[in-house]
Amino acid sequence: MLTGEGCPKSIRSINDALEAVEGKWKLMILFVLSSGPKRFTQLTREVAGITDKTLSKELKSLEENELIKRDVFDTFPPTVEYSITPHGLSLENVVEALHYWGLSHRRKIIGKE
Amino acid sequence: MLTGEGCPKSIRSINDALEAVEGKWKLMILFVLSSGPKRFTQLTREVAGITDKTLSKELKSLEENELIKRDVFDTFPPTVEYSITPHGLSLENVVEALHYWGLSHRRKIIGKE
Repeated sequence: MLTGEGCPKSIRSINDALEAVEGKWKLMILFVLSSGPKRFTQLTREVAGITDKTLSKELKSLEENELIKRDVFDTFPPTVEYSITPHGLSLENVVEALHYWGLSHRRKIIGKE
Repeated sequence: MLTGEGCPKSIRSINDALEAVEGKWKLMILFVLSSGPKRFTQLTREVAGITDKTLSKELKSLEENELIKRDVFDTFPPTVEYSITPHGLSLENVVEALHYWGLSHRRKIIGKE
């Protein structure tokens, strides 16, 4: 493990990353968007358990951090689509590391219950 | 990125991982403990900004998930020490991925401000 001793820069970078993706929803939303652009109602369905209010708040925060972008298409009525940005895609290693650790955690701890 | 399309198992494992380490404190605590066992007061100092109440709650949750262990030594007065377990250390890849992404996020987004 990256050692915590005498390394305030590591602490700061981990803190920065955790603040950008804090909560359980943001990475879930990015994960769902990694398969392609989605409309709000599609996201509500695919990110199981999220409320409209929370989804709307999380999308705004992800947009501010340039992890997703919001496109408005000039249809009638106008269509809004959310898609992942290259910066959002750069979270790939984080999401992958979480995925593999989550698998082993389920085998080890959750599987026991 | 691991694609979200038709892969409920990936969603579940990411969710499992995020639930075990949810919030900004747990990974910070594990990171600090990765440099060696610590007493409660040492943790309060090194995990900047955490309150005693939150630290105590987070330590309990980390212990339940077998990410840390709590040892009581028969001194006078008794000494309590927290240390990271092998399962906690297995989060190394997650913490490393967050660290590197946090560095690039600061350069790209936070650095702008």
